[in-house]
Amino acid sequence: MERLLASALGEEPADTVFTGVTLFNPLDCSWEETSFAVTDGLVVGTGDYRGRETRDLRGARVVPGLIDGHVHIESSLLVPSEFARAVLPRGTTTVIADPHEIANVAGTRGIEYFLEEGSRSPLDILFMLPSCVPATPDDPGGATLSATDLASFAGRRGVLGLGEMMNVPGVLSGDREVRDKLALFPLRDGHAPGLSGMPLNAYILSGLQSDHECTSLAEAEEKLRKGMFIMIREGSTERNLRDLVPLVSPRTAGRCCFATDDRHADLLATDGHIDDCIRKAVTLGLDSDLAIRMATLSPCERFGLGDRGVIAPGRIADFCVLEKGAEFRVKATWKRGKPAGNIPYRKTEVLRTPFSCRIPDAGTLRIGGSGEARVIGLVPGQITTREMRFPVDGRDVPDTGRDILKVVACDRYGRGNVGVGLVHGFGLGAGAIASSVSHDAHNVIAAGASNDAIIMAIRGVVAAGGGMAVASGKGITLLTLECAGLMSSEPFEKVARSLAALGEEVVSLGGIPGAFMHLSFLALPVIPELRITPRGLFGVTARRPVGLFVEKP
Amino acid sequence: MERLLASALGEEPADTVFTGVTLFNPLDCSWEETSFAVTDGLVVGTGDYRGRETRDLRGARVVPGLIDGHVHIESSLLVPSEFARAVLPRGTTTVIADPHEIANVAGTRGIEYFLEEGSRSPLDILFMLPSCVPATPDDPGGATLSATDLASFAGRRGVLGLGEMMNVPGVLSGDREVRDKLALFPLRDGHAPGLSGMPLNAYILSGLQSDHECTSLAEAEEKLRKGMFIMIREGSTERNLRDLVPLVSPRTAGRCCFATDDRHADLLATDGHIDDCIRKAVTLGLDSDLAIRMATLSPCERFGLGDRGVIAPGRIADFCVLEKGAEFRVKATWKRGKPAGNIPYRKTEVLRTPFSCRIPDAGTLRIGGSGEARVIGLVPGQITTREMRFPVDGRDVPDTGRDILKVVACDRYGRGNVGVGLVHGFGLGAGAIASSVSHDAHNVIAAGASNDAIIMAIRGVVAAGGGMAVASGKGITLLTLECAGLMSSEPFEKVARSLAALGEEVVSLGGIPGAFMHLSFLALPVIPELRITPRGLFGVTARRPVGLFVEKP
Repeated sequence: MERLLASALGEEPADTVFTGVTLFNPLDCSWEETSFAVTDGLVVGTGDYRGRETRDLRGARVVPGLIDGHVHIESSLLVPSEFARAVLPRGTTTVIADPHEIANVAGTRGIEYFLEEGSRSPLDILFMLPSCVPATPDDPGGATLSATDLASFAGRRGVLGLGEMMNVPGVLSGDREVRDKLALFPLRDGHAPGLSGMPLNAYILSGLQSDHECTSLAEAEEKLRKGMFIMIREGSTERNLRDLVPLVSPRTAGRCCFATDDRHADLLATDGHIDDCIRKAVTLGLDSDLAIRMATLSPCERFGLGDRGVIAPGRIADFCVLEKGAEFRVKATWKRGKPAGNIPYRKTEVLRTPFSCRIPDAGTLRIGGSGEARVIGLVPGQITTREMRFPVDGRDVPDTGRDILKVVACDRYGRGNVGVGLVHGFGLGAGAIASSVSHDAHNVIAAGASNDAIIMAIRGVVAAGGGMAVASGKGITLLTLECAGLMSSEPFEKVARSLAALGEEVVSLGGIPGAFMHLSFLALPVIPELRITPRGLFGVTARRPVGLFVEKP
Repeated sequence: MERLLASALGEEPADTVFTGVTLFNPLDCSWEETSFAVTDGLVVGTGDYRGRETRDLRGARVVPGLIDGHVHIESSLLVPSEFARAVLPRGTTTVIADPHEIANVAGTRGIEYFLEEGSRSPLDILFMLPSCVPATPDDPGGATLSATDLASFAGRRGVLGLGEMMNVPGVLSGDREVRDKLALFPLRDGHAPGLSGMPLNAYILSGLQSDHECTSLAEAEEKLRKGMFIMIREGSTERNLRDLVPLVSPRTAGRCCFATDDRHADLLATDGHIDDCIRKAVTLGLDSDLAIRMATLSPCERFGLGDRGVIAPGRIADFCVLEKGAEFRVKATWKRGKPAGNIPYRKTEVLRTPFSCRIPDAGTLRIGGSGEARVIGLVPGQITTREMRFPVDGRDVPDTGRDILKVVACDRYGRGNVGVGLVHGFGLGAGAIASSVSHDAHNVIAAGASNDAIIMAIRGVVAAGGGMAVASGKGITLLTLECAGLMSSEPFEKVARSLAALGEEVVSLGGIPGAFMHLSFLALPVIPELRITPRGLFGVTARRPVGLFVEKP
C-alpha cells in the first residue's frame, strides 16, 4: 500500500505510465485525452505522472477491459486457460462463468478443477456456482449438487454467488432445497425464459436478480422494469441482440450487459467475444458509448465489482487499445498493466473423469415392431424440437429417403442404459455423428443413417474418452474432448479448425450446418417437445417417458 | 415466504392492492398506469391483483420512498424518532445516517443509543459509522473511537459501513489507525472538500468511494469521473445544489444522489427534506424524472440496498403519493405498506450524558493587556472564518461599537478548561448567545456583548443539561437540548418554533440571522482560519495554538 500511495501522490515514479491516450470513461460515457499511471497492476491515477516506463499510445482509443456477464466456458470446448487465450486478444479481461457443464459431469471435483485451472491464466474468471445439477431428476448425469455442496464454496476466491436458477417450478413452489440454495449467497442469477406476469413476480420476489434468457423486447422490458438486471445474450446458437438492442438507452445502460452464454471455439476464433457483441450491437443501431458501458462498468455494478470496469484510481489496470477507425476492433489487451493479448500456448492438466459407456451393438439399436412412431423433429436454428409422427417399420429405419435417422443416447456414468429413438431433420445421407457434449447430463449421443456408422461414431467418442466424431465410409473424423468429455486442452486455433472440419464433413454427407449443436441438445428433457435420454424417449410437455410407437387407443 | 409466494402468484389475496396508480419506475425513468400489491410490507407484484383491502389512488402519481444519502440526524436538533416524524410526511422512508455528533459526545454509548432509539420509528435509519472521533486530536470531546470500537458494530442490524473519512492527511500518509478503520467495511464514505489531482487519486485509491463535499461543478466532475459516487448536498448552511445540478444527466444519474448532511428542525418543518431537494433541483433545471431517480434508486445502488428503491417484486413497499399538479409535493407517505405520514408524537428516552462544565466568572473572562489582537472574523453564510487584527485594550472589550464581542469555549467533559477570545461579525448590540452544539467536540460555546450576559447564557445552557440560549435584559430564552446536549425530545414542530424564536431574539438584539449556526462552528479547529477551543485560540493554517495578542517581533 505504501508503494501505491507514493505512486498515486506522485512521490515515487509509477511502474508504467500510458501517455497519449484517448480514454473512455463509462462513468459518464465520455472520452478524454489524458495519461494514466499503473503500479502493481492497479491504476494509481489519471493525469501527468512519472513512470519507470512510459508507453506512448499516440492518441489511440483506450477502453476498460471487457466483461462477459454470463458464460459457460465448457461450451467453447476449451479448458479455461485456453478459453482465456482465445478471448484475451479480443479485449475480454473478466468473465463471470457458471461451471454448470463440468459440474454435471464431475460435481464439486469439476468446480474445483475450474477454480484451479482457471487461475493459471491472466483472465479473471469469476464464478457463479451451478444451482441446478442435475438440471432435472429426469436426466441424471455424473453428479448431484446439494445446497451443502455449494455452501462449501462460499468465501472461496473468485466465487461470487449462485448461478442461473433454472428450476423455475422449484422456485415457484417454494421447494426446500431450492430455497436453501437461494439463501446461500446474496448474488443470484436468474434463468426464466418466457416467464411473465405473476409467476415472474413470484420468481423475482424469491430473490433472483438477473436474466439472460430474454428473447423478445417485451420480455426484457418487463423483467428490467421489475428489477432484473438484463444480460443480452449473443452466443453460437442463442442470439438475442437483434431483438433486445432497443432495450438499451442512457437511462437503462446501467442495468444491462452482454453475455455469450454458449459460444464455440470456432465463433470465438472467427468473430470474437464481447468485442463481437459490441460491433453487432452498434451495427444494430446502439450508441457505441453505451455499448462499451454495457461491456465494462455495467456488469461490475451488477456483481459488486468495485475494483474494475473503469480506468480510475485503485482499480485493476485492465484495458484494451483499439485499432484506428470508427469500428470497435481491439488491437492490444492489457491485464493488470501487462500485455495479455498474446499469451503462448501451454499444455495443461485435464480433468479425467470415468468414461464408463457401454457401446451398443446392432441388437441394442434394433427397433422392433411397426406403426405410427414418435419422431424428434429438429427446428432449424433452435434448440426446441417438435414431436412428429411417421408410419414406421422398425426394420426399415434409418430411412434416409424420409430423413428419418436413428438417434441414440448412451449413459456414460456406468449405468449401462441406452435409449434409441428416431430423429428428422439432420439430412445425413450416410454416416453418423456422435458427441459426449450432450446437455445437461453429457451422456454420449449419436445420430446416423446406419447402425454400423452410429456404432463406429460412438466407439470413436468412447475410445477418445470423450469427443465429437463423424463416421463415414472414409473412416472417422474426431475432435477429442479429453477433459471430462467436454473440452479439449489443445490450442484454441486447432480446436476451431477441427470443429470446422467436422462441420464440413457433416455437410459433405448431406447433413445440415450446425448438426453438432442440434445433436447436443437432443437429450435435454426440459426443453419442449420430444427428447431422447439413455432411459428412452421423453415427452417434455407431459413430463414423462413415452414409447417410440404411439399406443393404439 | 409461503404467504408472499402465494400472494405474488395470485393464489391468495394480497394484504393491500393499490389501484389507479401512475407509478414512477426509476429503473428506466418511466411512468406507468398500473396497480400493485403488498403483502407483509413487501411489494409482491405490479399488475392486476386481488387484495383483502383495495386502495384506489384515482390516478395519483406514486414514487418510491425517498432516501437521504448522508445525514447527521443530530443536526436537526431532534432525537432520531422525532427526526423521523419530521421527514416521513415529506416522503423520506430511508436515511443513511452518520452518528458523528452523538459519538463525539458519548462514543459507542451514543451510537448504541441511536441504533436503539432510531429503531422505534418506521423510518429506516441505516448507519455509516463515524470514522473520525474526535475530528482532530487538537479538540478532544467526550470520546475517542478506535478501529476496535468500530469493529464491534460490524454485522449489527442497520450498520452499512464506515462514514465520512475526513482525516484526509491520515489517509494520504497511510496512518495505521486510519487504515485499520478503512479495512473494517467494504462500504466507505469519503469526505474530501476541494481535494483534486494526485492527492484525490491517492485518497480514492485508499478505498473511499463517495463524496458529499463538492462545492463546484469541476470538483464534482473530477470526483465522479474518478469513480466516486457524488452526493449532492443541500443542508441548512452547506448548499451545493445550484452549482452541482449540471452534473446530472441520464448517463450520470445512477452515480449521484441527494444528501442533506446538516439540516435543522426549522428548515425541515418549513421547506422539507429530500422532497425539497427534488423541487429545488427541478427549479434549477434538472429533469424531474432524473431527480426522482437520484432520490430513490441511485442511493440504493450506492449502498447495495437491493431491497428497496423501486416498486417491484420483493422490495419493501415504501412509497409516496404525490399531490396533483406538476410540482413534487408529497401528499401521503407509506412505509412497508402502511401509512406513515402522520405518526403521533411519543415521548422517548433520551441519552443523559455527564454535563460537567465549569461556569466561568468575570475573572475567567477577563482579558488582560492590550495590543494588536487576533479576532475571529465571521464570513457570512460560510463556516470558514478569517483571522482579523484589531488594536484592543482588554478592559474595553466587548466593544459593540466595533462589533468585537467576546467568545468563550467551556469544556463540558469535566476538564474545566475555558478559552476566551474575540469575534467580529455577530452584530449583537447587547446580550449573549450560548450553545452546547459546537462542532465537533460539542463543548459549550458562547458569544456576547457583556460578561454578565455571556455568563447568564452559559449558565442557562448548563442548567438545562445542554441547549441553546439567548440572554438579554429580558432574561433568558432557551431551547433545551436534553439529549446529550445536542437534541431535544420534544415534538419537532415545537423545536422548530423554539429555534425560530431564538433567531428572532438574536435579531432583536441586533444580531445576524443564522447566529447559532455560526456560533456552532467557531470551535472547529479543522476549518480555516482562526478558532476558539477550551484550550484557547487555535490557528488552523499553522495548526497550533496562538495567543490573543499578536506577539511583538
